[in-house]
Amino acid sequence: MVRSIFLLSSSKVHGYEFLRHAQEELTTFLKRNSVKTILFVPYAKIAHDKYTETVSKALSPWGYKVEGIHVKKNPSDAIRSAEAIFIGGGNTFLLLKTLYDLNLVEVIRGAVLNNGIPYIGSSAGTNVATLSIHTTNDMPIVFPPTFDALKLVSFNINPHYLETDASKQHMGETRDERLNEFLEYQKRPVLGLREGTALIIYDDKVTLVGDRKAKLFKPECDPVEFDPPCDLSFLLKGN
Amino acid sequence: MVRSIFLLSSSKVHGYEFLRHAQEELTTFLKRNSVKTILFVPYAKIAHDKYTETVSKALSPWGYKVEGIHVKKNPSDAIRSAEAIFIGGGNTFLLLKTLYDLNLVEVIRGAVLNNGIPYIGSSAGTNVATLSIHTTNDMPIVFPPTFDALKLVSFNINPHYLETDASKQHMGETRDERLNEFLEYQKRPVLGLREGTALIIYDDKVTLVGDRKAKLFKPECDPVEFDPPCDLSFLLKGN
Repeated sequence: MVRSIFLLSSSKVHGYEFLRHAQEELTTFLKRNSVKTILFVPYAKIAHDKYTETVSKALSPWGYKVEGIHVKKNPSDAIRSAEAIFIGGGNTFLLLKTLYDLNLVEVIRGAVLNNGIPYIGSSAGTNVATLSIHTTNDMPIVFPPTFDALKLVSFNINPHYLETDASKQHMGETRDERLNEFLEYQKRPVLGLREGTALIIYDDKVTLVGDRKAKLFKPECDPVEFDPPCDLSFLLKGN
Repeated sequence: MVRSIFLLSSSKVHGYEFLRHAQEELTTFLKRNSVKTILFVPYAKIAHDKYTETVSKALSPWGYKVEGIHVKKNPSDAIRSAEAIFIGGGNTFLLLKTLYDLNLVEVIRGAVLNNGIPYIGSSAGTNVATLSIHTTNDMPIVFPPTFDALKLVSFNINPHYLETDASKQHMGETRDERLNEFLEYQKRPVLGLREGTALIIYDDKVTLVGDRKAKLFKPECDPVEFDPPCDLSFLLKGN
């Protein structure tokens, strides 16, 4: 299997311009794949033009052209002929529903896993790259036909991961409590990816990059923290 | 339509024992309906026995008997013959899926709306009492057949509502941003019900009770705050 996948926890990180925190690794990733033009998928938000412009403004100065899939006559053909695909953040339910509505799930999966088209995801775009969207933080504002996602990698991710304060006066569940509920029902691991971190996947090699640790939640184990840079390829092996 | 519905934001409130913050209004509600025994629905959590025991321990000292629906041979019959139904909090997706799996959605709806059986909901149990679970805060750990819920009331509620801090360094969406996403897509109002507050509904009269304000989000309007006690019956009238 030949795949090139870059999964960011978030596009925005405190103290940085949009995507700026990941510039070095992202440009290395794009150069390695000889990418000049990026097909952007803005379906996680309503304002497709505006969202595509934001991404274009961030990536143009780095030397990349950004095109929105929403202005393409045939989105499937656009995916198949893309130099690279970038799915941005927003609402994960809306994003996944739109991908199914437009019959793009299998097309993207084939493009990335069979034809090696590089995939970049951020936040909701990272959620949909995994097995399922069961570990999104978003509000379920629309109903997708399934929570099964692109399955570009064989595990789950929780983007924007952070420890929420259990000592505060609010009684709603903490993030860790929510992720433990997922473990109890789905019996499979989920990687908590903090803002400022990302996974880079080449074929079967998974590398954690960024400036913060990632936290792995596994059924019947205490969570484990990994310091970047770190090889997390075991995540693809059934763990 | 004769209905008696009590919807709590949460069972637990900082500084109070389980359900204790709502004792006065809850006992008034139960007495008015001559309830002695409550049928508890623990499906939002895994440990049904333990959860039922927690509720029983809270309500026994007030003079009420609590029976878990999970030990009943025929849950539908148990609903139909209940003196009152109480659906507790936990994971809203798990709760709604279980209600559909057991074919209880129409049974509960009929019991409450046609036969006047009193309904108490808390957190997830309040979410499922509304039009849909689109405004839950929970993680989608299981996939229900639809987000449509019991429709005991004709609007949406966001339990455990609170303003989350937009000034902090975390870049994930705030609660208000999430609720505004819901408004944009579903074009209908949602009531943010803070911990410590509840709605009491008799027939077509809706009263906000508790010690904090409730915040109504409406499409194309600024949010509005209501101080308890307050008549919110307009929420049932299409607003």
